[in-house]
Amino acid sequence: VSAFERVVVAGAGAFGTALAIIADKAGRKVTLVARDGSQAAAISERRENARYLPGLTLAPSIDVTNDHAPFRKADVVILAAPAQATRTTAAALAKKMPAGTPVVAAAKGIEQGTAKRQTEIIMELLPECRPAVLSGPGFAEEIARGLPTGVTIAANDLALARAISAALKTETFRPYASDDPIGAELGGALKNVLAIACGVIAGRALGESARAALIARGLGEMMRIGATFGAKAETFMGLSGVGDLVLTATTQHSRNTAFGMALGGGERLSELLRPGAPLAEGAHTARVAAEIARRHDVDAPIIAAVAAVIDGKLSVDEAIEGLLSRPLTQELT
Amino acid sequence: VSAFERVVVAGAGAFGTALAIIADKAGRKVTLVARDGSQAAAISERRENARYLPGLTLAPSIDVTNDHAPFRKADVVILAAPAQATRTTAAALAKKMPAGTPVVAAAKGIEQGTAKRQTEIIMELLPECRPAVLSGPGFAEEIARGLPTGVTIAANDLALARAISAALKTETFRPYASDDPIGAELGGALKNVLAIACGVIAGRALGESARAALIARGLGEMMRIGATFGAKAETFMGLSGVGDLVLTATTQHSRNTAFGMALGGGERLSELLRPGAPLAEGAHTARVAAEIARRHDVDAPIIAAVAAVIDGKLSVDEAIEGLLSRPLTQELT
Repeated sequence: VSAFERVVVAGAGAFGTALAIIADKAGRKVTLVARDGSQAAAISERRENARYLPGLTLAPSIDVTNDHAPFRKADVVILAAPAQATRTTAAALAKKMPAGTPVVAAAKGIEQGTAKRQTEIIMELLPECRPAVLSGPGFAEEIARGLPTGVTIAANDLALARAISAALKTETFRPYASDDPIGAELGGALKNVLAIACGVIAGRALGESARAALIARGLGEMMRIGATFGAKAETFMGLSGVGDLVLTATTQHSRNTAFGMALGGGERLSELLRPGAPLAEGAHTARVAAEIARRHDVDAPIIAAVAAVIDGKLSVDEAIEGLLSRPLTQELT
Repeated sequence: VSAFERVVVAGAGAFGTALAIIADKAGRKVTLVARDGSQAAAISERRENARYLPGLTLAPSIDVTNDHAPFRKADVVILAAPAQATRTTAAALAKKMPAGTPVVAAAKGIEQGTAKRQTEIIMELLPECRPAVLSGPGFAEEIARGLPTGVTIAANDLALARAISAALKTETFRPYASDDPIGAELGGALKNVLAIACGVIAGRALGESARAALIARGLGEMMRIGATFGAKAETFMGLSGVGDLVLTATTQHSRNTAFGMALGGGERLSELLRPGAPLAEGAHTARVAAEIARRHDVDAPIIAAVAAVIDGKLSVDEAIEGLLSRPLTQELT
């Protein structure tokens, strides 16, 4: 029996629904909390999240509701709303959980405007909780279908990360515990910037070798920026670093890669960034990350180039030209 | 003007031809030495390697020959024959070069039978040369077409690696210097084993998340095995490690990935390993690497699983089952 028996997932998007299905398979008592009553009723009745995760069945044992009462008895809460909605979601949970409740940030991204990480937002609004991070390479649909997946669950307290991992582990869903939540969060956020760059390479038809080189060089940039936050280098070499980077940057299914491909293919920036266009988290993260690198005098030319293109300061061609004309240094220095 | 003016490339396959084209673009005086006279004459006359690199032009300034005289005046020699032919190629060059000539191993792979790395073979047969390694993510065709590529050039003497890098650098071909030739060689060899595993995942339709997790976990195995040879962890985080791994494991063009896909898709091992079948270097490297891991008590379950499947000790299903049922540890331990 797991120490964490009752799992409550906040956010009934694709990822939240997939995690609810997994936690149920892992043997937990699961509640999936949707934002509104009609969404909860539809999922509960059909046993399917037809809008966000069609074709996958929710077992009868999963409660689906929009009621917040289950949070009071939660052994662990997973926040699975989109990254930019974490503040609203967390705010709605204030004073609805006992002190010390573990709250797992499952969304990836830096908050626009504040530049805060997911756990920073959580600690601001739920200061009495014990924050943790779920990150790493996993598509919601593949997770829910029971395809093999490995993710990182990180908390400052390694024992907490281990207990959450044990509570969610199934035959195919393998969460590895880590004591570096900052590194896990930064990996999940920064890889979106590099996915945009990889998309540009694909959009410009610059080849698979160039993409692989960019992933390797970009990983170094992630590690150097991470180090300024005290993140561990090893974290970036693991699932939530290179694993997530590889998945995002080599798939067609990533919004960030698609954004980069459109940019590389010649679409106008103003069109791609217009209000209402699909959100590419990496476009916002690029600015924040480039600013941090500049402030700490960290070498991050790929991230800086993505930020400069998005800010309209460089054309795509100028950015590529700039990267290729840099003096050659020793590797990883 | 480069310190290394005369570049002689031994081996007129796709990669050797591409490197000759690059060295010429870099401004060097280049000789491409083919194995036999008719091949040399055909390439020299057509200014094209129609067999191995069709559609790409060799500038008139590149000498193509099967004569070994140019080795005597070479400032740097690049061995670009296939990995399993390096012994023969190096043996033919014995006493044909002045002492101290830099010899760059451009092939990737462990020698069958002896389990030696490329530079070990070179040092055995050409003990007076200064060995170096060219490794990293680069398809010959993309390199020759002038698409952006980043590679690692490694030598125990960093100044030598830098001088070779400077001699070969063009606007699009970017060699980064490293002082870890063992790490660079091992990355190039071990990634083939993981590419087979990634191919199996694709052949079994286990999903992109599983492949990304395998790449991240496999990178850790490469680093741990590398450490037993004194290789640096950073090298595996760079172009010749994660860069080459990503390129090989995510492309359709790799023989190792194709071998894994066939295996995962249900083709018989005996058929895949029959004499005359296309050589998947990783199939041989797997055994050697698994043996090294066992001897040094290093945790390398993916590499061990590939070796066990190739040795007929486990079925593909048993291997996958075995990997998924391992106890969960902390990441990277």
